[in-house]
Amino acid sequence: MTCTLDDVLGAAARIAPYIHRTPVFESERLNAMANARLFFKCENFQKAGAFKSRGASNAVFALNDAEAERGVATHSSGNHGSALARAAQLRGIPAWIVVPENAKAVKKATIREYGANIIECESTLAAREETSARVVQETGALFVPPYDDDRIIAGQGTAALELADQVPELEALVVPVGGGGLLAGSAIVCDARGIDVFGAEPEMADDAYRSLTSGERVVTHVPNTIADGLLTTLGERNFDIIKDKVDDILLVSETEIVDAMSLLWTRMKIVVEPSAAVTLAAILRYADRFAGKRVGAILTGGNVDLGHLPFTSSESTD
Amino acid sequence: MTCTLDDVLGAAARIAPYIHRTPVFESERLNAMANARLFFKCENFQKAGAFKSRGASNAVFALNDAEAERGVATHSSGNHGSALARAAQLRGIPAWIVVPENAKAVKKATIREYGANIIECESTLAAREETSARVVQETGALFVPPYDDDRIIAGQGTAALELADQVPELEALVVPVGGGGLLAGSAIVCDARGIDVFGAEPEMADDAYRSLTSGERVVTHVPNTIADGLLTTLGERNFDIIKDKVDDILLVSETEIVDAMSLLWTRMKIVVEPSAAVTLAAILRYADRFAGKRVGAILTGGNVDLGHLPFTSSESTD
Repeated sequence: MTCTLDDVLGAAARIAPYIHRTPVFESERLNAMANARLFFKCENFQKAGAFKSRGASNAVFALNDAEAERGVATHSSGNHGSALARAAQLRGIPAWIVVPENAKAVKKATIREYGANIIECESTLAAREETSARVVQETGALFVPPYDDDRIIAGQGTAALELADQVPELEALVVPVGGGGLLAGSAIVCDARGIDVFGAEPEMADDAYRSLTSGERVVTHVPNTIADGLLTTLGERNFDIIKDKVDDILLVSETEIVDAMSLLWTRMKIVVEPSAAVTLAAILRYADRFAGKRVGAILTGGNVDLGHLPFTSSESTD
Repeated sequence: MTCTLDDVLGAAARIAPYIHRTPVFESERLNAMANARLFFKCENFQKAGAFKSRGASNAVFALNDAEAERGVATHSSGNHGSALARAAQLRGIPAWIVVPENAKAVKKATIREYGANIIECESTLAAREETSARVVQETGALFVPPYDDDRIIAGQGTAALELADQVPELEALVVPVGGGGLLAGSAIVCDARGIDVFGAEPEMADDAYRSLTSGERVVTHVPNTIADGLLTTLGERNFDIIKDKVDDILLVSETEIVDAMSLLWTRMKIVVEPSAAVTLAAILRYADRFAGKRVGAILTGGNVDLGHLPFTSSESTD
């Protein structure tokens, strides 16, 4: 059994009270650069600053009362942790978030603001999994994975569902791929609506590309990209859906990601994460694939550390 | 004769085809911080990245055909130059923009993209005025001042007019003040609609504050603030309207401006200029004046140089 369009539709109804219906932005200049009509779904304006609020809210509100009482747990150094903490707070149940000790203070502060318990551990995957298992055992909380989970996939798919409703006759959609929750959910929607769907992935974290090319899910990779939301390894359920329904994975370089991020900040005046900018980077690099089309892109999040931005002061006063 | 609400209404009708009706953003967290309901008018999303497109479009499209044929000229190192260049291009007439030689390359590039002629001069006010006078004499172009002009004041006032239409029962409005075009136009609207109106000004460029306090327009001051859109000296027409209709000028420090800018970027995920952030800085500093009220703020623009941002990397990895 796999996640279906009905699951996405169900998720949309379930989470509607708890998330933003985010706006769609356009830019004449970016349209001109791409020679296409681009529609940016602004999940950077989503609750807790990222699309992750969709999946986490769906997972938490899909629990029956007996399950919910036990609380929820996950491990995350990023947006999924905040999103799960927020969803748990809204439902009035406890949450335990396992966070690597080297996670940014601002991330931990956000999780705490949402009332969750933070458990720190070493930053290795082994330590995170071990600590999560211990927390689940000790507390009885239900583990909510960040992407390899049908409720998460269905929840994330609601972003593409909204965009397809907001933009008539969308012809293609470009979505960042890390663990593959958003891409798998989007692919289910696009498949049903006759929209071509593409994953956008950093060359420096190309496990989804290699998985699709080889037909075997690549799990041994050492990603290293500025797009820190895309460091995760493609999930199993996610791979099954993606290999069936996604048209292609488009790779982009680190420079292309920063350049696209700069364009989104300066032309559209919005704050997006590097992970979000891989979409525009892919559209501009593979412009011939999209020329003349109505193309959507999901700007996945806007949580950045303003003290550590990648922009260089290349400009002098001329 | 001074600018009236009818002039603002006329400007709104005149410029409607050429500008964005910009959205109003809210943030639960900023509301909680201010203990008020804040409505941010996002002129950072305006055409050419700032509210200046309103006044410039009004001035250019108010010309009769014989006047328009002569073209327009101004001196500006900032948003007014781009806005006038854009308005002239839309009307299909020539524009000459006098720019100090030390202006940012990106500003000059934007002006050129809109098809205007750039004339460089020394960066002193005397050189700018002299060069402008020469350009006007040589070309026959009509000079369009950046703020001390009724058409400009009426055009800028349309931002407050829109906001008052978008947000029912607005009780107060906070507007940055530099030359005073936006504040004067806003004051005309607020006066007619029964909304309290406040100017927000950097302590380091406090000529409007001192002018209002003393009753005499201060023209000898040496401003020095990160809010580079507010370096200009309050105009004469602007002062007449402001002293009659503005409730108060609220001063903020440089640190408060950067902190407010950081909040707008990280909480609302939008790119705004330091000049725009003085509004939130004032609302937070004088929170007792606004507690419990429905308060508007005009986020005037979003043109920044990403290579030179004021945020420091205060955060370590904890």
